[in-house]
Amino acid sequence: MPTNRDRDSALNAAADAPRRILIVGGVAGGASCAARLRRLDESCEIVVFDRGPYVAFANCGLPYYVGNVIADERSLLVSSPQMFRERFNVAVRTDTDVLSIDRAASTITVRDLKSGESRVEHYDGLVLSPGAAPIRPALPGIDLPGVFAVRNIPDSRRIRAWIDERQAKHAVIIGGGFIGLEMVENLVHRGLSVTVLEQLPQVMPPLDPEVAAPLMDHLRAKGVQLHLGDGLARIDRQDDGRLSVVAESGAQLPADLVILAIGVKPENGLAAAAGLAIGARGGIVVDHQMKTSDPKIWAVGDVVEVQDVVTGQETVLPLAGPANRQGRVAAESIAGRTTNFRGIQATAVVGVLGLTVASTGASEKGLRRASVSSFEKVYLHPGHHAGYYPGAQPIHLKLIFSVPDGRILGAQAVGSEGVEKRIDVIATAIQFGGTVHDLAEAELCYAPQFGAAKDPVNLAGMLAENVLNGDMPVADWLQVHTTDALLIDVREPHEFAAGHIPRAINIPLTQMRDRYAELPTDREIWVSCGVGQRAYFATRFLAQHGLQARNLSGGYATYLAFASMGLGSPQ
Amino acid sequence: MPTNRDRDSALNAAADAPRRILIVGGVAGGASCAARLRRLDESCEIVVFDRGPYVAFANCGLPYYVGNVIADERSLLVSSPQMFRERFNVAVRTDTDVLSIDRAASTITVRDLKSGESRVEHYDGLVLSPGAAPIRPALPGIDLPGVFAVRNIPDSRRIRAWIDERQAKHAVIIGGGFIGLEMVENLVHRGLSVTVLEQLPQVMPPLDPEVAAPLMDHLRAKGVQLHLGDGLARIDRQDDGRLSVVAESGAQLPADLVILAIGVKPENGLAAAAGLAIGARGGIVVDHQMKTSDPKIWAVGDVVEVQDVVTGQETVLPLAGPANRQGRVAAESIAGRTTNFRGIQATAVVGVLGLTVASTGASEKGLRRASVSSFEKVYLHPGHHAGYYPGAQPIHLKLIFSVPDGRILGAQAVGSEGVEKRIDVIATAIQFGGTVHDLAEAELCYAPQFGAAKDPVNLAGMLAENVLNGDMPVADWLQVHTTDALLIDVREPHEFAAGHIPRAINIPLTQMRDRYAELPTDREIWVSCGVGQRAYFATRFLAQHGLQARNLSGGYATYLAFASMGLGSPQ
Repeated sequence: MPTNRDRDSALNAAADAPRRILIVGGVAGGASCAARLRRLDESCEIVVFDRGPYVAFANCGLPYYVGNVIADERSLLVSSPQMFRERFNVAVRTDTDVLSIDRAASTITVRDLKSGESRVEHYDGLVLSPGAAPIRPALPGIDLPGVFAVRNIPDSRRIRAWIDERQAKHAVIIGGGFIGLEMVENLVHRGLSVTVLEQLPQVMPPLDPEVAAPLMDHLRAKGVQLHLGDGLARIDRQDDGRLSVVAESGAQLPADLVILAIGVKPENGLAAAAGLAIGARGGIVVDHQMKTSDPKIWAVGDVVEVQDVVTGQETVLPLAGPANRQGRVAAESIAGRTTNFRGIQATAVVGVLGLTVASTGASEKGLRRASVSSFEKVYLHPGHHAGYYPGAQPIHLKLIFSVPDGRILGAQAVGSEGVEKRIDVIATAIQFGGTVHDLAEAELCYAPQFGAAKDPVNLAGMLAENVLNGDMPVADWLQVHTTDALLIDVREPHEFAAGHIPRAINIPLTQMRDRYAELPTDREIWVSCGVGQRAYFATRFLAQHGLQARNLSGGYATYLAFASMGLGSPQ
Repeated sequence: MPTNRDRDSALNAAADAPRRILIVGGVAGGASCAARLRRLDESCEIVVFDRGPYVAFANCGLPYYVGNVIADERSLLVSSPQMFRERFNVAVRTDTDVLSIDRAASTITVRDLKSGESRVEHYDGLVLSPGAAPIRPALPGIDLPGVFAVRNIPDSRRIRAWIDERQAKHAVIIGGGFIGLEMVENLVHRGLSVTVLEQLPQVMPPLDPEVAAPLMDHLRAKGVQLHLGDGLARIDRQDDGRLSVVAESGAQLPADLVILAIGVKPENGLAAAAGLAIGARGGIVVDHQMKTSDPKIWAVGDVVEVQDVVTGQETVLPLAGPANRQGRVAAESIAGRTTNFRGIQATAVVGVLGLTVASTGASEKGLRRASVSSFEKVYLHPGHHAGYYPGAQPIHLKLIFSVPDGRILGAQAVGSEGVEKRIDVIATAIQFGGTVHDLAEAELCYAPQFGAAKDPVNLAGMLAENVLNGDMPVADWLQVHTTDALLIDVREPHEFAAGHIPRAINIPLTQMRDRYAELPTDREIWVSCGVGQRAYFATRFLAQHGLQARNLSGGYATYLAFASMGLGSPQ
């Protein structure tokens, strides 16, 4: 029998591959990189350093551990130093802080946090995956006991203990983004009452405000207090030991615990101190192989700046999926393969108290920030499956597309069922540079309990096609109260009577063919109905009769969303 | 004020558009065509004829109406003659059979089924949307009372009444395809015991047999009797008035009612009699605008032959989504626009007793029938969401892709949650001619309750990439019992002891680095584990040490599926 040593001569690693690879940070990107690199190269030495006591834990699960939806902390440990050693022959050094990089010497200085001792480690290749740190503004009281961020398992354990020991009843969450809302979900699940303090006038800042509207209605209906358009000024400790969050407006929000979920910033300190290029958004600058400005150093995950494939802009996006992909790409680069990281498109989802909110690509506000104006959008509110099958729930969907080429730029959706499925399909279309025509003719799964012969994705594409080809010009909801156009509502009288856009007149679609002569030819006519379908039929009818008809996309359901956000109000 | 007549002069219909359009068949494709055509052309006359008493009913809902999941028949009426008239100015003639087409005279002869009177109707354009009829083989007893097909509302009403009046306890369903399984779902829901008689040795003929295996296990576990690999010989009426389904083998299956769900065939009689070109599969031949061999006649829906975009072959596919799209395309063609129908890719889903089965693109057997051999496939069994979040359910997924270019050819999946979402994403990628690399880097929604940082779609793409680039050669499951290769199982000993592939030896992955010298260099080594991941790691390790390792894709879970179908057995 040949010996193991004989066999080692057969190792097929690239001859010029670096031999000692150090990875700083053992979660998501770092862990992916280590495992992938070992599969590509049996011969190199791989060492992972992590400041914390764990590697490869499920940081996206932390809010659910706080909420006790995930009851056992061990569930979060996707891997372990032992598994890395046994499966991958990767050494893991936990509780070890990386203090500095000496690029000239190709070394890092690390400190064992348990022994306090420091040592120098040589590298042939270095991968930085330190992640992003929760933003802690330097405000009074930010470090008081009972004020928490949610970054790692010990953080979560402390929050759990605090809730249990103090019998916490009320939480204030600073920030209404992804993590903030996941904490809402979980603290409500634990029986706490929750107030969200958010600087913007909406929750879920990545969404356009009118799409956030049904989410906000839902949160309020579930008893969550939203304190919006107001920033954090300080946190006080009251005489009774409770906390009081004081907003910039002076409002005082009492709390048994406070969660900081304002956002995160790339942990770029190590890289910046070593003189690596840092981008305008604070992330490490990397190329398509995740290589930094130093050819022996790669960086992956929440710490890097990457290109948004829709807007073309550099961005920092703390998402686990891209972090994992980047880890793989870096490993391939180290092993001498040249896989490109294709950039990000910001596909994300959050579940909050029975509602799902998901989005992909650019938002309207994001496009405006990027000074893109050649786009249009449609709103629709289809059921998540065929209406004739019991239990269909509406999906509130906004599709944004480029004009005139129809390229899909982004989509946002809110609803209780089937939401992320539609966003995943649209995300896939965006990945291929697809157009709204592609969505119109997508062939998707249909049985009554799963979808519709015209799936919401198809409908969105068809509506957008109608806008693009001039069949259905759309009106601007923001001008609905100020326009000189005639507003007509084509629903039946009993629907109109139950609520309608101010100034709108009622001409039901079923009477339109008899009554259209009443309408002016010299004035725009903005047509609305319940969710947009009948108004589309009416718009087509009127346009074919020479009238200047425009559709108020998404109908009264969209109007209510704009109205509840105070958008386009008369003033 | 201008009069309506003045306004009509502004009608923007194409000058040469036909003026009187007759549509034969008012469901799905026909109804879509009528509505779309009206939106494009206010000026033409549109008349829809249907043999039945309804238009635009939800035929995909019929099994659920039988099952009383949809309790109210009226829910199935998506539209009505009145709505067509009021909304679309479309005339609907129900209970009217179209007897013949006189192409030279541009007329059809129709008969009012209530009055019995016939008349001739002139057309400028004719759209045929007669659908497909359930296959009723000319076997003894096929027309006995209690033997039903499920094509329309009156059919379904009769089945409901039969079950109620006869207090039916047991049903035999002839055919285990989509409709057959939907009838299983619904008759079980009504408390009947059900036997399925299917000529093939599997249910769901569109699936490859090993993918159907978990579905069949599930059906049996739910008490459904599967009588497979046996055809229908005749149906007898017993002395006690019950029915007895007699199979070709002679087996007798007693039944209070029998459902014929053998399949459907295009209702091509009208078209064939008029001399329109009919394809090899029995469907009307159409071009990309759904125009038949006669320039004044279009055909849409289950009656036409269309191109399968994956195999390039002409096919007949009775699905509502494509039928609706075809109706729109025909309307656009009639109105002078030239939209192309892009063909079909056979995306379909069925829900059966808590399990979802979905597929898109080509199956392995379909490719072999089409004499395509340059493909490979991977199996995987990931959770439908992150494993650390409670409740993850496995999705059994097979991905088929072209070699060496990696183009996605098809995917099939079975599981209880999130199944059709993954198939929809892969269907979208197929639409764009995407490759497995695209799946690997798809950016999909991830939060713990919705997916994973590496979604099942990403994993499928990554596995396929590993096969394509030679990192993970795969072995052929069909040869697992006859191969000369050494079979090694890299799970831990307790897993191995609980069940393993015959002849396999156990070398846990965790011991592989110490024990690989035991392995022969002159013989293939086929590696398996539980679901494929650890075997992949082992395959990489062994390959890098010069051993001829191949992965048994999908591991023991896939083995069990093959074994339960008797595939690749030693015999």
